[in-house]
Amino acid sequence: MNSIWLQNNQISLREVPIPTPPLGEALVRVRLAGICATDLELVKGYYPYNGILGHEFVGEIVDAPDAPPRVGQRVVGEINAVCGKCATCKRGNPTHCENRTVLGIANRNGAFAEYTTLPLENLIPVPDAVPDEMAVFTEPLAAALEIQEQVLIKPTDRVLLVGAGRLGQLIAYTLKLTGCDLRVVTRHASQRNLLEGKGVACIHPEELPVRKMDLVVEATGSPAGFELARKAVRPRGTVVLKSTYAGRLTLDVSAVVVDEITLIGSRCGPFAPALRLMEQGLVDPRLLINAHYPLSEGIAAFACAEQGGVFKVLLRP
Amino acid sequence: MNSIWLQNNQISLREVPIPTPPLGEALVRVRLAGICATDLELVKGYYPYNGILGHEFVGEIVDAPDAPPRVGQRVVGEINAVCGKCATCKRGNPTHCENRTVLGIANRNGAFAEYTTLPLENLIPVPDAVPDEMAVFTEPLAAALEIQEQVLIKPTDRVLLVGAGRLGQLIAYTLKLTGCDLRVVTRHASQRNLLEGKGVACIHPEELPVRKMDLVVEATGSPAGFELARKAVRPRGTVVLKSTYAGRLTLDVSAVVVDEITLIGSRCGPFAPALRLMEQGLVDPRLLINAHYPLSEGIAAFACAEQGGVFKVLLRP
Repeated sequence: MNSIWLQNNQISLREVPIPTPPLGEALVRVRLAGICATDLELVKGYYPYNGILGHEFVGEIVDAPDAPPRVGQRVVGEINAVCGKCATCKRGNPTHCENRTVLGIANRNGAFAEYTTLPLENLIPVPDAVPDEMAVFTEPLAAALEIQEQVLIKPTDRVLLVGAGRLGQLIAYTLKLTGCDLRVVTRHASQRNLLEGKGVACIHPEELPVRKMDLVVEATGSPAGFELARKAVRPRGTVVLKSTYAGRLTLDVSAVVVDEITLIGSRCGPFAPALRLMEQGLVDPRLLINAHYPLSEGIAAFACAEQGGVFKVLLRP
Repeated sequence: MNSIWLQNNQISLREVPIPTPPLGEALVRVRLAGICATDLELVKGYYPYNGILGHEFVGEIVDAPDAPPRVGQRVVGEINAVCGKCATCKRGNPTHCENRTVLGIANRNGAFAEYTTLPLENLIPVPDAVPDEMAVFTEPLAAALEIQEQVLIKPTDRVLLVGAGRLGQLIAYTLKLTGCDLRVVTRHASQRNLLEGKGVACIHPEELPVRKMDLVVEATGSPAGFELARKAVRPRGTVVLKSTYAGRLTLDVSAVVVDEITLIGSRCGPFAPALRLMEQGLVDPRLLINAHYPLSEGIAAFACAEQGGVFKVLLRP
């Protein structure tokens, strides 16, 4: 089968054998996959991964030796494949399993291919009302919802989102549902147009409310974005760090202590509520799609995804 | 009256007039005062303060024009004098008042003097069962209790405290009361002796439990201490930053995001429960006292307090 392979920070198309699902896993035919900022970071060397890229997908189970009735199900896939036995799993934090493999990110071939495999428990059926072009956003939408899993967002809270790119847009759509007083710091006109079309207030960095916001979500992954977040948060407020940074960040810890700020790292989130919100029409991420490419034009698709102002590029095997 | 005055990072004894309490404030005769790490940091230039040093004290109200019946009360003093009118005060976070002055730290003469003044509302009566040598610890003990104000510490939690100096000792004494599984990283034999005498388990840095602790309190104020804290905390665990750092700290934000760590800055705390714990005999900080000096020997007292392994040096005007 065809695949997009990462080796020593170089991507290429590679013909590989169709995988055989190990015990407890299923073979999934990929229907549609999305390129994420993490994929671009992996190519830049953010993490030493070699193998098939891709972790955002919707597909169909075509072989499930341990659960034959599931063949034919349209599914999305939780990307962390876990042991279920370590202390972290037993504490109920499986996405932090110390022995995990991660689809297209760590020790597990990904979804930019005709077929992929995942444990049966990771494969979640997609409701009929959610078309493939929506379902392919389940993983990043779940990551956006992880914020609401970690932090109480009160309807009366003043909330600032710094960054309105791929993930930032999805975060804005879910934050809006809390009823909070939301403002988004944007950089590109394309970001503003999408948000203002949904009634979300956008501001320029120079309009930043200083020491006023109850909650700030940092979704740029840049030191400049963190600096804005730090300036905007009120004493005893919370900053959610939603992006991985390529480098290290220098922090004025004394200011964090004196203002008693809370910083929270936030990563993967829950799939079921992401599917519910899309099924109920409360979040529709399809307007983020800029382009469709066949898998065979994957290199061109990556070049397209890297351009400023581009939100989501989809790949169809 | 005599006082210890800080000017351009130099301390000296200085004769100044006895202050006249402004509207709503009281004149307090200082009975006993304590030298804190923050005082030593101020001398090093941590914050650009000029004036009388000192914020840990117990005293007696000797003049209160707006509340004459309070004259004669033995009191401790909440160090943040606040406006009560700004948005932060109204939200119930008075210690973060944007217009605050802070006793011996910011725009308000401190307690290393024969007399000091504070707003009446800041002066909290000391129960008879709490002698001066205990009451003088109310402010740092309150700062230790701020952790329990901010974070739920479960009796089943595995908790690590990094640092067992002046503040670290008081933090250990209050963490112990939660019933949690507490270990303390110590550096000096004097620190270990005090803690082991109270049944608290001490470890060396090389015995650090890696990625295992639910909660880690960093009380060294050093990058090395933070590094230990970061290593010890489990995925989705919490690190409380209890010390101000003279410099900036470089942080691997990606690791914080991937492990979904929470970092919380923690500063001043509640006086009433600190007094209650001492009144009930649940915390007795007096074994931390290394030396008493008369105020007139304040310079020698500071030199003593700066020595490694010294916990608390008291000044008596």
